[in-house]
Amino acid sequence: MVEYHVIPIGRVESTLKERAQAPRQGDEGAPDAWLVFEPGVADGIRDLAAGAEVIVLTWLDRASRDVLVTRPRDDPARPPTGVFSTRSPDRPNPIGLHRVRIVATEGLRVLVRPLEALDGTPVIDVKPVLDRAAER
Amino acid sequence: MVEYHVIPIGRVESTLKERAQAPRQGDEGAPDAWLVFEPGVADGIRDLAAGAEVIVLTWLDRASRDVLVTRPRDDPARPPTGVFSTRSPDRPNPIGLHRVRIVATEGLRVLVRPLEALDGTPVIDVKPVLDRAAER
Repeated sequence: MVEYHVIPIGRVESTLKERAQAPRQGDEGAPDAWLVFEPGVADGIRDLAAGAEVIVLTWLDRASRDVLVTRPRDDPARPPTGVFSTRSPDRPNPIGLHRVRIVATEGLRVLVRPLEALDGTPVIDVKPVLDRAAER
Repeated sequence: MVEYHVIPIGRVESTLKERAQAPRQGDEGAPDAWLVFEPGVADGIRDLAAGAEVIVLTWLDRASRDVLVTRPRDDPARPPTGVFSTRSPDRPNPIGLHRVRIVATEGLRVLVRPLEALDGTPVIDVKPVLDRAAER
């Protein structure tokens, strides 16, 4: 099977340092965090502006990639569930999806809210939220 | 800079064969398409069921990875825009996000609607839609 290579475009800079600290989802008390982009993608981020809602994709580099079945939210009351029916970070390709709002931009640094990804997590893509009603 | 390796978990089987045929977004007339999973991830897809809304992540293997600025929807009336403020497939890590509904499942094959990805596109992840109001 062919493999593809993901190249980080930046890193998360956050007060969250360990997985045990991190909320399950951004809207469960996650802090603001900086996205610190590589100089090579400066042109790609030039239109990111405060106020915009975006989807940040990360590579969850502390996840386990050999997990196919898990208990959602580590809750023993829930039955074991196929990972593709959960948001567990442990999955074959550990890509995180984070819907956030841009709070501020400073050159290659973009402050977003809220973000549950850990400090140092690679950022691999940013996409605008498609608002089907308003955007087209 | 460290690279990460994405391993396809399946492929798209679709009537869309070429990029010129494909709508820009799934809700602009895209067809139903099959996701055909690898036998090795069978346990991971076991809870995908007809009716569920999921986000399919693909690796857009026919995209250009060296594009940082583009015109949204190839519209000459729009100004050149940093790719991270667009949904262009041409971007450093060409990951597609597709919100679809599962129509049917047959073993390792899952029929979804609508999907604008081309025939043969690698599938790299599937996640449930988080309905913040209803799900938690």
